[in-house]
Amino acid sequence: MRMLKDMSPKNVLFRKGFWKSRVDMVTEKLIPYQWKALNNRIPGAPPSFAVENFRIAAGESEGKPKGTIFQDSDVAKWIETAAYSLMIRSNPELEQIIDELVRLIEKSQLSDGYVNTFFIAGNPEKRWTDMNMGHELYCAGHMMEAAVAYYEATGKRRMLDIMCRYADHINEVFGPGENQNHSYDGHPEIELALHRLAKVTGEQRYTRLADYFLGVRGSVEDFYTGKATQSGMMHDSRWFLNDYYLAHKPVEEMNQAEGHAVRAMYLYSAMADMSRSKGGRKMLKALTSIWRNTVDEKMYITGGLGSQSHGERFTIDYDLPADTGFFETCASVGLVFWARRMFSAIQHGEYPDIIERALYNGALSGVSLDGTRYFYSNPLEVNPEVAAYRHDHEHIQISRVPWFDCACCPTNIARLIESLGTYMASCSENAAWIHQYTACEMNILLEQTSVRIKQDTEYPWDGKIRISLKMEGSLNFTLFLRIPGWCADFSLWINGEQQRKPLLENGYLVMSRTWQNGAQIELDLDMPVRFVRSNSNVREYAGKVAVQRGPVVYCAEEVDNGKGLQELVVDPTAKTILEHDNSLMEDTRIIYLTGYRDKAEGDALYFEYEADKDFVPCRIRTIPYYQWGNRGDGQEMRVWLRVKQ
Amino acid sequence: MRMLKDMSPKNVLFRKGFWKSRVDMVTEKLIPYQWKALNNRIPGAPPSFAVENFRIAAGESEGKPKGTIFQDSDVAKWIETAAYSLMIRSNPELEQIIDELVRLIEKSQLSDGYVNTFFIAGNPEKRWTDMNMGHELYCAGHMMEAAVAYYEATGKRRMLDIMCRYADHINEVFGPGENQNHSYDGHPEIELALHRLAKVTGEQRYTRLADYFLGVRGSVEDFYTGKATQSGMMHDSRWFLNDYYLAHKPVEEMNQAEGHAVRAMYLYSAMADMSRSKGGRKMLKALTSIWRNTVDEKMYITGGLGSQSHGERFTIDYDLPADTGFFETCASVGLVFWARRMFSAIQHGEYPDIIERALYNGALSGVSLDGTRYFYSNPLEVNPEVAAYRHDHEHIQISRVPWFDCACCPTNIARLIESLGTYMASCSENAAWIHQYTACEMNILLEQTSVRIKQDTEYPWDGKIRISLKMEGSLNFTLFLRIPGWCADFSLWINGEQQRKPLLENGYLVMSRTWQNGAQIELDLDMPVRFVRSNSNVREYAGKVAVQRGPVVYCAEEVDNGKGLQELVVDPTAKTILEHDNSLMEDTRIIYLTGYRDKAEGDALYFEYEADKDFVPCRIRTIPYYQWGNRGDGQEMRVWLRVKQ
Repeated sequence: MRMLKDMSPKNVLFRKGFWKSRVDMVTEKLIPYQWKALNNRIPGAPPSFAVENFRIAAGESEGKPKGTIFQDSDVAKWIETAAYSLMIRSNPELEQIIDELVRLIEKSQLSDGYVNTFFIAGNPEKRWTDMNMGHELYCAGHMMEAAVAYYEATGKRRMLDIMCRYADHINEVFGPGENQNHSYDGHPEIELALHRLAKVTGEQRYTRLADYFLGVRGSVEDFYTGKATQSGMMHDSRWFLNDYYLAHKPVEEMNQAEGHAVRAMYLYSAMADMSRSKGGRKMLKALTSIWRNTVDEKMYITGGLGSQSHGERFTIDYDLPADTGFFETCASVGLVFWARRMFSAIQHGEYPDIIERALYNGALSGVSLDGTRYFYSNPLEVNPEVAAYRHDHEHIQISRVPWFDCACCPTNIARLIESLGTYMASCSENAAWIHQYTACEMNILLEQTSVRIKQDTEYPWDGKIRISLKMEGSLNFTLFLRIPGWCADFSLWINGEQQRKPLLENGYLVMSRTWQNGAQIELDLDMPVRFVRSNSNVREYAGKVAVQRGPVVYCAEEVDNGKGLQELVVDPTAKTILEHDNSLMEDTRIIYLTGYRDKAEGDALYFEYEADKDFVPCRIRTIPYYQWGNRGDGQEMRVWLRVKQ
Repeated sequence: MRMLKDMSPKNVLFRKGFWKSRVDMVTEKLIPYQWKALNNRIPGAPPSFAVENFRIAAGESEGKPKGTIFQDSDVAKWIETAAYSLMIRSNPELEQIIDELVRLIEKSQLSDGYVNTFFIAGNPEKRWTDMNMGHELYCAGHMMEAAVAYYEATGKRRMLDIMCRYADHINEVFGPGENQNHSYDGHPEIELALHRLAKVTGEQRYTRLADYFLGVRGSVEDFYTGKATQSGMMHDSRWFLNDYYLAHKPVEEMNQAEGHAVRAMYLYSAMADMSRSKGGRKMLKALTSIWRNTVDEKMYITGGLGSQSHGERFTIDYDLPADTGFFETCASVGLVFWARRMFSAIQHGEYPDIIERALYNGALSGVSLDGTRYFYSNPLEVNPEVAAYRHDHEHIQISRVPWFDCACCPTNIARLIESLGTYMASCSENAAWIHQYTACEMNILLEQTSVRIKQDTEYPWDGKIRISLKMEGSLNFTLFLRIPGWCADFSLWINGEQQRKPLLENGYLVMSRTWQNGAQIELDLDMPVRFVRSNSNVREYAGKVAVQRGPVVYCAEEVDNGKGLQELVVDPTAKTILEHDNSLMEDTRIIYLTGYRDKAEGDALYFEYEADKDFVPCRIRTIPYYQWGNRGDGQEMRVWLRVKQ
């Protein structure tokens, strides 16, 4: 197995284009906005209390901690996001805010190393008693990830040291020893964090602890089937048993996507991390099986996951309801985490393919274009009256909202976008993989030589990508360029010379040669408007198509097409019109489809069908799915459109 | 307003044909089967305890009553069904069973007249304390209906007297007086019963009590919004507030179908009863508005009602999910009750039209062809794997079952079928309306003259109906023959002479003349296979058609068409083949459609759409919807099929 080096946001400079606009949005608008949210300063938004909880735990404020049992993780993810922003752009004021937070965290830390405001200030006697819903190790994990990111961004060790002390404490409490707790967290996360901690500190005990948590998981029968937990969550239904927690079997025996979708993504990510150390082969076999099941049978076209709201979980194969699914932003974010780690184990383009799918669609849809409004669920069809009324739509927001009582999603999409550099490329000693295309400059370290890779492109709106290499002199290495799974045709030029039969392997163009400084590569990915159908086993999308161009999935919105989107019928044989649009986001390409509106006259509920009688030709305006819900509240929206057959 | 006389099952003799086979099934198989069920003698079925409860309440057995709080009503509805059967066919053995039951009921009756095993033997101190979920007046109503039917069948007064004593007791407890209870039942039913009791006894105080219950309903604000009732039902969700009980406003101010679907049907039936006495005009205005909303916006094509399982209730206009709705058998039965009463107030064919729709489809589907297996919900689409897994399908039986813990439906469909004579025709002094067509002989009393109307027909499988009149000499009266709403073309002959321009008014052919003994009328209703579409506002059925012939809605079942019914695409322009089939029920017409199977090859979840590429011509076998689920368990089934457009 090749040892790949991960990229860091530090290594990537985004230039004017799609992702620069998103990263800038997070840096400039979202981070300050979320700081206000965490401090209850957004009028009309549910108060967070998350920062105040640390003041209380530090003894600098009165009261009991408020909010969810895992409220600390919102602060952690905000710090992590802010740390990534500092890797891209310095901001002393922001750094000062974080330093002050770190001071509070340290002050709240107990002498044994324990950090958690909910338990310290509210329920000290309940520490480590509610492993399935207590989220203590989960919060610890997020705090550790924040600490690592802040250390990597600034070189400041204080938060890292705090969290190492906490990790050491956890390492004492949990483990195989007779007097140790043999449990693990109902929500995987600490495993990911311990790997990062190990990497930055070089301390192998953290990896071993992560391995322990993974190894013990699912090994105790009925470990989680208590009637209710201290947090009040009932486990009286079959959707909240062990499999909900991914605690129903040893991880290496898992073979399909199941349980709570976010928990699953985090667990599979941790398993992929572990697969690179010990027990790799068996773990990879399990992961490959789960991966296939996820992307071939249980994934929405947007990269959304979790077909049922009750349990926020996976259901059965090909069950992908467009309106009532859960599609949690965090699950799509977690899918990106997992896919990146899968690539580290198996260098195949299908992993960055899925990263791209989730990034441009089901993850990015979770945040408004200005960074201040959010979706928790990212459905593929919204009918506001139904969503406002029906019991099985209770979880659907018909409009983006300023914050949530349970605000895991806004901070998760934030840290993903701000760390996007991590997902752009990979490298080993003598190879560089370019996974994602966007206008940018990337520094990649091969052996001891740094190569600067510049991308000029309007991707994802245009398929032309010009890549230039800058290095001292020349270097022999293999350059891999991903040919996305959606792309059926492409052209390649190297230094102006068209390559007639380029080597395409495992989803990448493979170019091994001695590259000279100034080398120019041009890749032209054919990017037509595509009508996509689903496997015929998917009941929901039978007779329907989705519109996709490049990696971007499109949708029809009420504001463009009027109410009753079920009446729209696409003619896939007719021409489509691509149009520049700057109204919501610069350089967007919107797509006009040709089709019909099937609007029958009259008040009757049931009446004679007459073929095509009610078909009135019409133009259907579609916009990128991730942009929906940015123009007025309570809009109908639909990804899967009827197709004329 | 014309004063119409109701028909009785006594007046109708079914002859070999559709309904004779159903009525015989109830008489011969269902009644003995349900008696066993009520006595816990069906192996594998949930025990009922309903008869044993009466023994306990009568002091002839030990223990506490078991089952639902309204278990008495199952016994009542069984007696009512058995009584109707005695109107058709004498059965001394059955009469003896009922007489013994009546003895027990009388022995259980308290000295003040109160009858209810749950409260007498289990919770005497709680009488009349839980009006929203206690179902005391509901049970009383069903017992009264049974008593009336048994009296009408046999002339025996004992049960009638018992229930009159109970009605008198209720009349003392409830009413506008200062020391009276100003409440009413959370489940309407007693109002209907009191009208029947008043009619058979001539006691107007029962009508006045029914009027009182209707008049006080909805007049006390937040009457029902307690946190929980004694029966443990939570009212913490917006679907279980006052409107669930139809207790949210005065009945005359209601204007749309809302709340719990069965409660609603019973209430609207009671309102229609009341509209014939006092306050008629305002009540009829409310009813007309509710009726329009029900049939034009909230009714399944099968006559099923209630689009949401949570609250078993109506939702919003045009919200008609084929798989997750509630479609309770009792709701379709209740729709028949209501529609009959609407006709009594407004003589229009649309009411018998809806009776016909519910009878042949959403009601009849609730019982297996042999009378021993039942559906509670009657969905229009069943995907067994989904139904077995998903939370929003928890209420769906994927196979017919032998009994239910809550067994309201089996006894309700039974009494409906066995009292079918009631729905066949109506008459006033000088007019007779023929509503339903089936091979039978009906005795109708006009003024003082009895007219015997004989129908020869294979309806609903064939549209030809020959009607002959038998009477002493001749009689001047108006004969109304319903032209069903589904019928676009028909021919009429009177005494062999074709009528070129027959008078068609309000859904009926109107024939006023002096009829001679032996008069012959032939009506030929054109009965093609119809492809029916829905109003374009219904999201669920966009791009789909239902197949209907005559009043019968058809469905595709897995046993005939394989798995994956979403792959079937009907070509509505191609020919259909009608075939005789006796395998499930004699003389059934099954329909073969021409169409395609849209089965894409390959494992991918999403891929390029290519028009018609995957369409393989195929024949689609459809059977009458009400027959589904009679050939093996756990079958896919679908009413709304994709249509080639």
